[in-house]
Amino acid sequence: MKTFDNVPALYAQLEEISSRAKAIAFDPLLREPLSQVLDSVFSVSGKQLRPALLLLFGRAGSCYPDCEEQLLTAGAVVELTHMASLIHDDIVDDSPTRRGRPTLHSRFGKDMAVYSGDYLLSHVLSQLMRQDMLEPGRVLAQSISNMCSGELGQYASQFDVQTDENRYFMNISGKTAALFSAACQMGALISGCSQQAVSFADRFGHSFGMIYQLRDDLIDCIPNSDADGKKQGMDFINGVYTLPVIYSFKDAEHGPQLRALARKAPSMDPIELSSELYNHISAAGGIDYTHWAMKQHRARALSSIAQLPSVQLRGQLTALLDEIMA
Amino acid sequence: MKTFDNVPALYAQLEEISSRAKAIAFDPLLREPLSQVLDSVFSVSGKQLRPALLLLFGRAGSCYPDCEEQLLTAGAVVELTHMASLIHDDIVDDSPTRRGRPTLHSRFGKDMAVYSGDYLLSHVLSQLMRQDMLEPGRVLAQSISNMCSGELGQYASQFDVQTDENRYFMNISGKTAALFSAACQMGALISGCSQQAVSFADRFGHSFGMIYQLRDDLIDCIPNSDADGKKQGMDFINGVYTLPVIYSFKDAEHGPQLRALARKAPSMDPIELSSELYNHISAAGGIDYTHWAMKQHRARALSSIAQLPSVQLRGQLTALLDEIMA
Repeated sequence: MKTFDNVPALYAQLEEISSRAKAIAFDPLLREPLSQVLDSVFSVSGKQLRPALLLLFGRAGSCYPDCEEQLLTAGAVVELTHMASLIHDDIVDDSPTRRGRPTLHSRFGKDMAVYSGDYLLSHVLSQLMRQDMLEPGRVLAQSISNMCSGELGQYASQFDVQTDENRYFMNISGKTAALFSAACQMGALISGCSQQAVSFADRFGHSFGMIYQLRDDLIDCIPNSDADGKKQGMDFINGVYTLPVIYSFKDAEHGPQLRALARKAPSMDPIELSSELYNHISAAGGIDYTHWAMKQHRARALSSIAQLPSVQLRGQLTALLDEIMA
Repeated sequence: MKTFDNVPALYAQLEEISSRAKAIAFDPLLREPLSQVLDSVFSVSGKQLRPALLLLFGRAGSCYPDCEEQLLTAGAVVELTHMASLIHDDIVDDSPTRRGRPTLHSRFGKDMAVYSGDYLLSHVLSQLMRQDMLEPGRVLAQSISNMCSGELGQYASQFDVQTDENRYFMNISGKTAALFSAACQMGALISGCSQQAVSFADRFGHSFGMIYQLRDDLIDCIPNSDADGKKQGMDFINGVYTLPVIYSFKDAEHGPQLRALARKAPSMDPIELSSELYNHISAAGGIDYTHWAMKQHRARALSSIAQLPSVQLRGQLTALLDEIMA
């Protein structure tokens, strides 16, 4: 992992956040079968981007480093929220794998998946109460609500070849960017930043999350770009039309062909599908347009942190941004 | 409805709690399709037993009636938590109906059901934060965790004809009694009761919830006792073995026949099954034993409130207890 090499101190803090997340989830009253399910959840490790952003903004205010304790717990809470959302997303996706490994619901059934997610959320709630984190808790609660709206909005647009960019951006803003934004705001709040700096953190996190999702959606369209053990073209097959596709739907030549492809996608050979999909959207400019949208959000992210006083922090955030753009 | 006729003031407060729950759920940012889903959730009204218990214990402390505002919001939060749990339970049950009406996931799909439940939970969290309800929030969070453990414990025991009373009681204690107990404790906490009175509320709510579930489980075993539009014998068909069945499994004569019935239940005509099931468990004493267990919990519930100073409150709680025993 090289993601946080520009802030090496993050590695130890993220390690500690992992331990805390585990300690919170594996409470002393935990019994089978939940402990087995959680073992499986914790065995898949992500990049911890959300807690990393929380930690970075947690250095922006005057309470740092006194607030480190709270930052570490808040980081664990954000990571547990993310885990709960992944577990619930998997039920909905019916994905057999996530990050190249079997999903919880495919291994343990959807009963386990529903309640494991809820169980983690109950511990998120409990920790926020225990630590008196009222304001960060409000921010987190709002982001969970936005995540649900975004996911449901996406569901409502499924298989709709008339869907548009606005709906797409609204949906990914909820389902993905909301939690990034919450993580940044929570860090800023806990470290005692001004209201203005908290709103910078909000905007930075939003743009960061948008880029993160745009990149993920792009990867799904480009054959052999598979880094996470995910098959390409799955969004398209599942009727989740992402920016490269939505843009290309409007193309005079490739639009009608893409819509025809959408109709026959579920019955096609996935490799053939993914290659045809790529040919259409790259010819229609959907790939370039998505890159352009990512750059727009990068510019917005940078402008939102331009007024942060710490040159070092700005550099670290910019480096992380460029890391996920790559 | 005659449930709360012994405390007529509750009707107006429960009406207000319903309005608040709706106002919390239908936040100004709500958009389709979630608003449609929530319309459907709110169109089915329950008995509001949990908020009623919260209100009753909310009269036990010295802060009443000054704390009425907080009690009403806490009641709404408890009702929303209950709704979220019903929505998630339905996904797991695959129940096509609940209270005689189509379940959310059968009408809108499990995507909607997962996120509608999570959405409601996020608003529960948000309200607790907004109202600074740290201690009641901790209690509620713990009960959600227990609910998940109970549901998962039940799932782990499914179709296990060797399951025993201890596991059964542990599971229903989590899946049902925990939220009743939390509601009672929250009322007591908000009204400023002593720690001892809060623990009385805890124990009363626990026993109340146990009786509630025992009665529900009994109804499922008795043909034509259907009051909620629920088919009989469904627990047994789904491999959820409840106390009347577990007790009868041990019977020398009827036990083996019941286990044989369990094996062929899924392929049987439901009416025939429900009649055979009833014959075995009533002959084996499973019905009587469950009634006995309910009476034991009634005695415990009464002993837990015996030291409450208000004669009136004790009378009201006893009346409500007898109402659900009937």
